[in-house]
Amino acid sequence: MRPTDFIREHVVSTTGHFCPFCPGQELKTPPEVLAYRPGGGSPNTGGWTLRVVPNKFPALYVEGALNRQGDGLYDKMNGVGAHEVVIETPDHMLALGDLSEKQVEDVFWAFRDRIVDLRKDVRLRYIILFKNHGMGAGATLEHSHSQIIALPVVPKRVQEEMTGAKRYFDYRERCIYCDIVRQDTEGSSRVILETDHYLAVAPYAARFPFETWIIPKKHSSHFETLEIPEVKNLGWLQRAILRKIDKVLERPAYNLMIHSSPVHEGAIPYYHWHIEIIPKLTKVAGFEWGTGFYINPTPPEEAAKFLREVGLV
Amino acid sequence: MRPTDFIREHVVSTTGHFCPFCPGQELKTPPEVLAYRPGGGSPNTGGWTLRVVPNKFPALYVEGALNRQGDGLYDKMNGVGAHEVVIETPDHMLALGDLSEKQVEDVFWAFRDRIVDLRKDVRLRYIILFKNHGMGAGATLEHSHSQIIALPVVPKRVQEEMTGAKRYFDYRERCIYCDIVRQDTEGSSRVILETDHYLAVAPYAARFPFETWIIPKKHSSHFETLEIPEVKNLGWLQRAILRKIDKVLERPAYNLMIHSSPVHEGAIPYYHWHIEIIPKLTKVAGFEWGTGFYINPTPPEEAAKFLREVGLV
Repeated sequence: MRPTDFIREHVVSTTGHFCPFCPGQELKTPPEVLAYRPGGGSPNTGGWTLRVVPNKFPALYVEGALNRQGDGLYDKMNGVGAHEVVIETPDHMLALGDLSEKQVEDVFWAFRDRIVDLRKDVRLRYIILFKNHGMGAGATLEHSHSQIIALPVVPKRVQEEMTGAKRYFDYRERCIYCDIVRQDTEGSSRVILETDHYLAVAPYAARFPFETWIIPKKHSSHFETLEIPEVKNLGWLQRAILRKIDKVLERPAYNLMIHSSPVHEGAIPYYHWHIEIIPKLTKVAGFEWGTGFYINPTPPEEAAKFLREVGLV
Repeated sequence: MRPTDFIREHVVSTTGHFCPFCPGQELKTPPEVLAYRPGGGSPNTGGWTLRVVPNKFPALYVEGALNRQGDGLYDKMNGVGAHEVVIETPDHMLALGDLSEKQVEDVFWAFRDRIVDLRKDVRLRYIILFKNHGMGAGATLEHSHSQIIALPVVPKRVQEEMTGAKRYFDYRERCIYCDIVRQDTEGSSRVILETDHYLAVAPYAARFPFETWIIPKKHSSHFETLEIPEVKNLGWLQRAILRKIDKVLERPAYNLMIHSSPVHEGAIPYYHWHIEIIPKLTKVAGFEWGTGFYINPTPPEEAAKFLREVGLV
């Protein structure tokens, strides 16, 4: 299927209603845990370009003990963790791809700053960074934002990915993501964009049409170890990719996830952090739920061609 | 969240447009591979109460060799398999839950009959039976139907489930599903309905609001080994559960999957076939994709209470 064959939600922001993420409403959110105010100013007042606040309706709470226990044959534990929201811009009408390079870069700085703070809590073993853009992708508020959830366990899907990567490493003594970068840089039809520090590709046998991964070219297991030139380069590339997706698919809803390593582990030779972006074009239905396999009507090589060839402006 | 708190798609059928699954259009589908015609009659003519036809746009093709091969660091194979559609009723306006007990029972007979035929092909290792009801659940045609996909590999999600069940069995020498039946029959707040042969429950720590499982009470690894009284009882229960879901959630879109064992394996002591029904009420978003964990706003014990207490008519 080509871009115009999909039923797409064209995500647009609307004015005229109350939004707790807009400037002037700082007291309508829980008190901020981080904010960038280039001109200075007090917490929870105006003048910010980015704010991080606890989620008002969190999936997990910071207080309390894990209290792991059996319940007959089942097991349970308390939902201890943190759930925060990164308000990416004061401007209600702009999406992440519409922001300046510096603003997109700042979102990654906010992720890094929050990880460095949250990992001090030894109970929290994994931090997932993600963004739901548009109602079709599960966003409940229009105003552009990302989310941070710190979990007391390493998630199932991360475990699977790490186990698979480790098996590959044990056999070949090479990181599978480094191998993907190597194979796909050598003239692969799946490359969308290459920068100094990253490769943006439509992954081989992609699960979803126009699924896009951003992979660091240099091996690195933890997102939060990024250095300044790498964050700058990532801001530029993330913005470029989102603008390409917005152009080819006419501002679709999408999910974006950063896959990284458990925060308390040291550098891991076999796992490599990366970003996955999934435009919301197909439905996950009975076949996918029953098998864990995905039917993708657009080969990644063709999706990459559309995204590669569209201009950046 | 209570039933009325969700944004639901109320699935309704519409008249006045062409439908290839309606009586009189038998030649608009690929030739049928199975049909029930209580009054007799020729294939691909009228008089049927249920038809099974190959999917006109199949995900997999029966012809050709698997041709497994490497592609640099990746692996690939051909999409060899079968993809069929069970047209559950001649009446365009009725959903599965609206049909008679006999008609619902016949859908399960059709599943069984097709498995018995398809498993003769030794290349096909797993058969997934599923249903997408409503556009929101991924259905592309309104007319009530289920799907059968026969795969040349055992799916990832099935492998995971079987591996988990085997680890439990190796430790306890008991099937985990038999243990679930045992624990939940003893006055659990998650039971929705119990019949001679089955237990319908909201599973412990359900992934989705109003997720419902139908589990045979007697250990059985393969759906297709069902005996006549068990199929009759299943038809009655499936219809009852769908009618309860339709009543509580006002005819929501849903996915239904039958999890069973690989068709060429003999009886397995540690795995137990079952049905999973997922009403489409929440969005799978970045957190779910990134972690494999699910945030469920309705505890299964409360969902079960709603479904248990609503009448059958």
